[in-house]
Amino acid sequence: MAKYDKYVGFQVNSPDSYKSFHKQEFDVKPFGDNDVEIKIEACGVCSSDIHTISGGWGDQKFPLAVGHEIVGRVLRVGPKVTLAKEGMRVGMDTYGAVWPDTGIVTQGGYSSHVRTHEYWTYPIPDAIPSASAAPMLCAGITTYSPLVRNGCGPGKKVAIVGLGGLGHFGVLWAKALGAETWVISRSHSKEADAKKMGADGFLATQDQGWNEAHKMTFDLIISTANSFGEGFDMAAYLALLDVHGKWISVGLPEEATLQISPQDFMENGCLIGASHLGSRREMLDMFKLAAEKKIDSWVESVPISAENLAKTIERLEKNDVRYRFTMVDYDKEFGA
Amino acid sequence: MAKYDKYVGFQVNSPDSYKSFHKQEFDVKPFGDNDVEIKIEACGVCSSDIHTISGGWGDQKFPLAVGHEIVGRVLRVGPKVTLAKEGMRVGMDTYGAVWPDTGIVTQGGYSSHVRTHEYWTYPIPDAIPSASAAPMLCAGITTYSPLVRNGCGPGKKVAIVGLGGLGHFGVLWAKALGAETWVISRSHSKEADAKKMGADGFLATQDQGWNEAHKMTFDLIISTANSFGEGFDMAAYLALLDVHGKWISVGLPEEATLQISPQDFMENGCLIGASHLGSRREMLDMFKLAAEKKIDSWVESVPISAENLAKTIERLEKNDVRYRFTMVDYDKEFGA
Repeated sequence: MAKYDKYVGFQVNSPDSYKSFHKQEFDVKPFGDNDVEIKIEACGVCSSDIHTISGGWGDQKFPLAVGHEIVGRVLRVGPKVTLAKEGMRVGMDTYGAVWPDTGIVTQGGYSSHVRTHEYWTYPIPDAIPSASAAPMLCAGITTYSPLVRNGCGPGKKVAIVGLGGLGHFGVLWAKALGAETWVISRSHSKEADAKKMGADGFLATQDQGWNEAHKMTFDLIISTANSFGEGFDMAAYLALLDVHGKWISVGLPEEATLQISPQDFMENGCLIGASHLGSRREMLDMFKLAAEKKIDSWVESVPISAENLAKTIERLEKNDVRYRFTMVDYDKEFGA
Repeated sequence: MAKYDKYVGFQVNSPDSYKSFHKQEFDVKPFGDNDVEIKIEACGVCSSDIHTISGGWGDQKFPLAVGHEIVGRVLRVGPKVTLAKEGMRVGMDTYGAVWPDTGIVTQGGYSSHVRTHEYWTYPIPDAIPSASAAPMLCAGITTYSPLVRNGCGPGKKVAIVGLGGLGHFGVLWAKALGAETWVISRSHSKEADAKKMGADGFLATQDQGWNEAHKMTFDLIISTANSFGEGFDMAAYLALLDVHGKWISVGLPEEATLQISPQDFMENGCLIGASHLGSRREMLDMFKLAAEKKIDSWVESVPISAENLAKTIERLEKNDVRYRFTMVDYDKEFGA
């Protein structure tokens, strides 16, 4: 008998060949008393997966199956589990950690199954399809958390900078939370989409004097910008904020430094910060809101396979996505 | 009869000779219904005076008498004044603005008298000597306001970066407001002074691993640093903050850019901002606190004269001050 259980998944063997996915078996950590075993149904594709397999965020343990916006059915639970039940549909968000003693590396959601501590599983309301729920587990919570922590709601004017995978959730949440919601983008190319998502207004930074009419009117700006280099005029964004307004970055460029003068904060006493994922409580609240307000992620569903994963990564690198990919049809690839 | 009333003061005639003070008469704007006329008793000397007369903060109207931490007695009030009374001791903080229609430039507190709208006058409690009250009008409120706006009080751990004119007030206020108060300085040279001011702890950034034992423990950092160049390790300061803690700059270097990565905000979800003076309400609260807690500014009093102003500016430029200068003995120079 093998020492460890095995799952099967699409692994990358090296950052040098990060678009080559190999369907391989891998060892799974021993099933613990608080563990939950999940048969995967859908998994979102996130830019952070590319940062990871290409080495952009530093060394990783290979071979590695990434994919961390995971939705599936609970197959079994450990004897001490209280947060999940057999048959329940749950989401989770993790991979890449090494288990103590075993040397086994947690594998992500481009796999048949996943095993995790119950704390990292979140029940998905029936109203939300798996393909729609998957990207909420990372892109969704990344924008939801800073919105609610910084008072997004009725009577507030909120801007989302950048309309990509993160930004599109920012618009959906801000609107669902009741705020006057604006999108700030480079050009007008996504203006129609923004309006369809519910945005009340749209500003294009390529327009001369784009921020003039809105100075000191925003309570909160969530920036999903993935570059702070040439052409990113931080002072122009901060000038949009009302007194004590906040600018929160949720983008994480591989190399980026913001250039700011204390003077840029002077007129309005604004604050800047950054945010990273969110809490369990916020995750549960987000899914409740999504179910109640019937929020549908703008996702393109792609049947999982080695070829389709490679194509999807390539399209994501070219920003050829509106606005998020979810890998689906796991039964066809891994069996029912 | 002259068109305008005249006062006398110590003016600088050009930024090229900004340490040459000339005792000269100047025109005063017409006395308005809401105006208050003040015979000056004391005036603090602030680095911003140097930035102004030397041209570091841009062009000014010369000749100009600076000095904006002004304390004096009310000589007379306009018929609509309700906030001040004849004989009352008040403080104010202003200069350099041009009055509409007249072209007259408001002159500062290195002068015999000053005339201003009542809104900019604040009654000084009897318990606070004029020389001690004067620097509170700028250096005091600059540190008091961000402390109270960001929750400084019992149960909070607060750091003041830099122990100069601003920083020494930061320590006095933070302690008076009931917070655990720490000073962060380059070396240990001012540690004894910090402790005398009431600081509970002291960190010197020249010490190896200076921030290690305090990571994620501070609720608020008020930075009075006047340089963000080489050796200013922003990430090391931000690592000190507890979850959602704030770093607020009150220093305003003439040329300075903060270099920050979104990653620096990640561990603790901290925020950074800047603050500039404070509100009328905060000014009144600050003087109340100072009177109640018997807070004494650490000031060196200097009799006002052209020679002493030049010497004082020179010493300030060399940081040869612990911790603030106030010009006094106005009666001797300008008459009783």
